[in-house]
Amino acid sequence: MPTQFLYIIDILGTVSFAVSGAFLAMEKKLDPFGVLVLSFVTAIGGGTLRDIMIGNLPVSWLRNDTATVVIFFSAVATMFFGRYLRKMRITLFLFDALGLGLFTLIGIDMAVEKQFSIGVCIAIGTITACFGGVVRDVLLNNIPLLFRKEIYALACIAGGLIYFGLKNIQLDANIAKVICILIIFAIRVLAVRFKLSLPQFYSRLNTTDET
Amino acid sequence: MPTQFLYIIDILGTVSFAVSGAFLAMEKKLDPFGVLVLSFVTAIGGGTLRDIMIGNLPVSWLRNDTATVVIFFSAVATMFFGRYLRKMRITLFLFDALGLGLFTLIGIDMAVEKQFSIGVCIAIGTITACFGGVVRDVLLNNIPLLFRKEIYALACIAGGLIYFGLKNIQLDANIAKVICILIIFAIRVLAVRFKLSLPQFYSRLNTTDET
Amino acid sequence: MPTQFLYIIDILGTVSFAVSGAFLAMEKKLDPFGVLVLSFVTAIGGGTLRDIMIGNLPVSWLRNDTATVVIFFSAVATMFFGRYLRKMRITLFLFDALGLGLFTLIGIDMAVEKQFSIGVCIAIGTITACFGGVVRDVLLNNIPLLFRKEIYALACIAGGLIYFGLKNIQLDANIAKVICILIIFAIRVLAVRFKLSLPQFYSRLNTTDET
Repeated sequence: MPTQFLYIIDILGTVSFAVSGAFLAMEKKLDPFGVLVLSFVTAIGGGTLRDIMIGNLPVSWLRNDTATVVIFFSAVATMFFGRYLRKMRITLFLFDALGLGLFTLIGIDMAVEKQFSIGVCIAIGTITACFGGVVRDVLLNNIPLLFRKEIYALACIAGGLIYFGLKNIQLDANIAKVICILIIFAIRVLAVRFKLSLPQFYSRLNTTDET
Repeated sequence: MPTQFLYIIDILGTVSFAVSGAFLAMEKKLDPFGVLVLSFVTAIGGGTLRDIMIGNLPVSWLRNDTATVVIFFSAVATMFFGRYLRKMRITLFLFDALGLGLFTLIGIDMAVEKQFSIGVCIAIGTITACFGGVVRDVLLNNIPLLFRKEIYALACIAGGLIYFGLKNIQLDANIAKVICILIIFAIRVLAVRFKLSLPQFYSRLNTTDET
Repeated sequence: MPTQFLYIIDILGTVSFAVSGAFLAMEKKLDPFGVLVLSFVTAIGGGTLRDIMIGNLPVSWLRNDTATVVIFFSAVATMFFGRYLRKMRITLFLFDALGLGLFTLIGIDMAVEKQFSIGVCIAIGTITACFGGVVRDVLLNNIPLLFRKEIYALACIAGGLIYFGLKNIQLDANIAKVICILIIFAIRVLAVRFKLSLPQFYSRLNTTDET
C-alpha cells in the first residue's frame, strides 16, 4: 500500500516540477520547444545528475516512459491552460513540496544501496530533489533560486538526517519513509508560509554590489 | 560508398559547428583559449551529453583524434581568418544544416542499439545535434538560441520520426539514412530562408517582461 | 615522502579553491547554503567532470571523505572569518597556484592510465584543474573568468607538455611530477604578477560590443 501512495506522490511531484519549469520558460518568452525542454530539465534534471554521479547509467528517465509522458503532457497543458493553472498555484506548491520530500528519499535510498557515507547519501538526496531547478535556472540565465530564496535544500537535509536517525532506532522502514517525506513537506510549507530564509550574517563583508 | 559520404558530412558539420562556436566566443571578447574551448564545446557538447546519459564512457571524442584535430584547426582558422570566413557564411550554414541531420542520425542509431523507445531515441538524436549549442550559450551567459530562434530542434524531431517511418516499411537502411539527413537539412534551410519560428501562442499569459 | 608532500598540496589546494568559491558566492549575496554549494562546486567540479567523461564512476569525491570535510570547513570558515581570510589573499593565491599544478598532474596521470593520446591527457588534466571554476562562474551567472583573464589554463597545458617531455627522457617519475607542478605554479604566479593575458589579435573582427 505505501508503494502505491509513493507512486502517486511521484507523479504529482513530477507534474508540479514540470509545470514550474514551463511557467518560468514562458515568462522568459521561450518558444514551445524551449518550454518543453525546460519542463523536462526541471522534472528530471536532479535525478539525471544523481544517476550520472553515482554511475547508474543509462540515466533512469531514458527507461521510464511514465515520467516522460507525464512531463510532456504537463508542459503542453501549461502552454494551453496556463491561465487556469496559475489559479491552482497553492495546490501545485503543495504537490511540489511533497515531491521534494519523495525525491530526496529516492535519492538517499539509491545512495545507501551504493554504501556511501551518511553525509554523501544526504547530499545525493538533496541533489536529486533540488538540482533540476538549478539546471533550469542556469538555462534561463538566472542565478539559481535555490541559493537565494526561502529554505529549500535545508528541508531536504533536515529530513535526511531524521530519516537516518529513525533507521538507526530500527523503526519500520515504511514508517520512516513517510515521516521523512512529511518532515520535508512541513519544513518547506512553513518556510514559504512565514517567508523563512537563511540569514546572511556575512553580508557586511561584501565589497561589491549587484542588483 | 555511403560511409564515405557520411564521413565527409561528419567533418564538414564538425567544422561548421566549431566555427560557429569560435565566432560567438570572439564576439564576447573571450581570449584565444576561451575561443578554443567554445569551439570544442559547440562541436562535441551534444555527443558528450549523449554519451554520458546513455553510459557510453569514456565519451567518444576522447578516442576520436580526427574530430579533435578538425576542431582545433577550425578554431585557429577562425581566429586568424575570421574576416574571410564571415564571407562564407552561407556555405557554413549549409554545412551546419547537413551536420545537424547527420548528428541527429548518429544519436538515433546509438540509442536504437541500446533498445530505448522511439520517443527516447529521437530525443537522444536531437540532444546529440542540438545541445552543443546549448552548452555554448550557457558558457557565454546567453539564454540558449535553441529555445528562441528559427526552427532547429523541430527539424531533428521531424527527421527522426520520418526515419522510424521508413525503417518500419523496411526501406533499405542506407537510403533511409540519406532521406533522414536530407529532410532535416531541408526543414532547417527553409526555416531560416523564410524566418519560420514556432508560434508563442501562450505569450498573452506573460505577466513579466524582459528585454 | 613525495606522497606526503603531494597530499599536503592536495589539501591546501582544495582549501584555496573552496575559499575562492565561497568568496564569489558571498559577493553575489547567496545564502549560506548557496555559499556551501559554490565552495564544493569550485573545489570538486573539475575532478567530477573528468571522472564523468572518462567513466570513473561513482565520481571520486563521493568516496573521499577528507575532501568533503576540508571543503565544508573551508566554506564555513570563509563565512565566519572572511574578513581575515581576505588579508591572507596572497597566501591563498599561492596555495591556489600549487593546487592548479597538482590537480593538472592528477588528471593527466588518470588519463594516461586509460591510455588516451597525449593531447587528450593534457586536456583532461586541464579540465581537472580549471573547470570547477567554470561551473562556479556558470552558476553565478558570469562568463567564466577562465576564458578572459590572466593566463590560467595555458599554465596547465605548458606544464603538461613538459611533463610528457620529461617522461620521454626517462626522468624519475617523482622528479617529473614535482617539476610539472612547479612549472605550472611558476607560470601562474608570473602571469598574475605581470598581468599577462593572451593577446586578442582578432578583436578588430568584433562587430558587436558588450560591457
